[in-house]
Amino acid sequence: MLTVLTGGTGGAKLIQGLSLEVDLRDLAIICNTADDLVLYGLHVSPDLDTITYTLAGLADEEKGWGVKGDTFAALESMRKYGWETWFKLGDRDLATHLTRSVLLREGSSLSQATSRIRETLGVKASILPVSDDRIETRIVTPRGEISFQEFFVRDRWSQEVKGVYFAGVERSRPAPGVIEAIQSAAAVIVCPSNPVTSIGPILAVPGVRAALREVERPIVAVSPLIGGTAVSGPAAKLMASMGIEVSACGVARAYADFVDTILIAREDEGLRGRIAELGVEPVATSILMHSAADKRRLAREVLALIGPMC
Amino acid sequence: MLTVLTGGTGGAKLIQGLSLEVDLRDLAIICNTADDLVLYGLHVSPDLDTITYTLAGLADEEKGWGVKGDTFAALESMRKYGWETWFKLGDRDLATHLTRSVLLREGSSLSQATSRIRETLGVKASILPVSDDRIETRIVTPRGEISFQEFFVRDRWSQEVKGVYFAGVERSRPAPGVIEAIQSAAAVIVCPSNPVTSIGPILAVPGVRAALREVERPIVAVSPLIGGTAVSGPAAKLMASMGIEVSACGVARAYADFVDTILIAREDEGLRGRIAELGVEPVATSILMHSAADKRRLAREVLALIGPMC
Repeated sequence: MLTVLTGGTGGAKLIQGLSLEVDLRDLAIICNTADDLVLYGLHVSPDLDTITYTLAGLADEEKGWGVKGDTFAALESMRKYGWETWFKLGDRDLATHLTRSVLLREGSSLSQATSRIRETLGVKASILPVSDDRIETRIVTPRGEISFQEFFVRDRWSQEVKGVYFAGVERSRPAPGVIEAIQSAAAVIVCPSNPVTSIGPILAVPGVRAALREVERPIVAVSPLIGGTAVSGPAAKLMASMGIEVSACGVARAYADFVDTILIAREDEGLRGRIAELGVEPVATSILMHSAADKRRLAREVLALIGPMC
Repeated sequence: MLTVLTGGTGGAKLIQGLSLEVDLRDLAIICNTADDLVLYGLHVSPDLDTITYTLAGLADEEKGWGVKGDTFAALESMRKYGWETWFKLGDRDLATHLTRSVLLREGSSLSQATSRIRETLGVKASILPVSDDRIETRIVTPRGEISFQEFFVRDRWSQEVKGVYFAGVERSRPAPGVIEAIQSAAAVIVCPSNPVTSIGPILAVPGVRAALREVERPIVAVSPLIGGTAVSGPAAKLMASMGIEVSACGVARAYADFVDTILIAREDEGLRGRIAELGVEPVATSILMHSAADKRRLAREVLALIGPMC
């Protein structure tokens, strides 16, 4: 069993690569849920959906979110009804949120709803929300607190960030299977996701980080940064706000207590010495994933690092 | 103020005709809600929506339900998720149900949600659900009880009907404005809707029928039957199951305690004597409404009957 920690976009790319290289039934994907939102009364889980759609072959890879070829008729009508429509829910995508919301209202847990959705879409990999409890990333700005999606989608991460916290995380418990997936893993992969708001909430769920520290099998991370810039998204800005050095070295330090190896960009070879000092082995390669071939190649490199260690 | 009692399809046709003849601000439309259903966690009000869409110019007149030119991408995905999809929710239509459901969950009443929706769509007429309380038409069949929509849409009214009742109606109260609209009406029009399951629930809400009996202004009904056949829908079958004579005379008898005049089909001229014996004045005309011109002409005839009486 290969266990993967992930957020949405960047993680989905690596997971797509992995899906071409390993038997999906051997993959357990632990997914961030702190970006979840309730929209028009529906429970929306952007990271769970991005991963599920990616493995189902339904993802809009160009946009990095939503369903390929989706239409937006319902959303356009919601706009006419006077609702905010900056979060782009497609018509097909809406069916996922309706399904999840009905299941949750009927008493299913988020993990149960996630299983039902991915099974219906024919996804063989196990996709686990990190917790069935509500965890909410809050972005503290000079003008007050906002949700992650308000920061990320509505404001296109333009606002100054004074801090980040995960409301509800202290009382949250790992979802069924999460700790087991870590403990029984032949190896763990930390995707090139935002270390603050994608991997951060996963690590903050009580018991998860401790379980990762106990893992004796290899744990490999992939840096989401090249130089001081995130490959995509607001990772750099959020890391800076948290006092984390905005570099692959900062990423390595954030994971140093449990990660063995980190794949970094060739452009960051100069950081190898400092990363090694943290007790993390740096391996420089091309970490950009534009094409399917890129994704597969990087997945192979990760698996190659794990292989000899296993 | 002209007050209209209506269900969906047939009523919508006459109301469209009326909308071309009277100032919409003078129209109060009391609408059946006993066909409402909860689908995928959403509150769907088919009759309210048909009337609202009709007056907003959005109705799919050919189908008799839903939004003109609507797409069904979300529904198709719901089918893939394994849900029943015999009730055809379009993507634009879905926005109405989402809007209504959010408003209800936030504490609005059905009347408040209905006002918000029709105002947003630019509808000037007042559209009143007969009650803000849940009333549910139950169809008793030899194989057990089903909802109205299961009978009407799912089973295309193929099942034998042993009886009909309106669950919750005894405890229901008329929505704000309903009794006032009846009491202050210059005239009341009973649309050519199903007397059992469209007008029936309206009359069964405590206080409504009594208020209609007190009205001293003219009350005109339009028969939904030609001979022993309903112009559309399962009215004939449902009337028979309730022991109501399946004819314009049966309709007149069902309303005889409050209706002054009933428009019947020319084909039913032979019933005039029997209808007059009930104390209801029969007026024979062409009651079929295929074209916009038909709707307008019938509306004019109804208004002409009211006019001289006012």
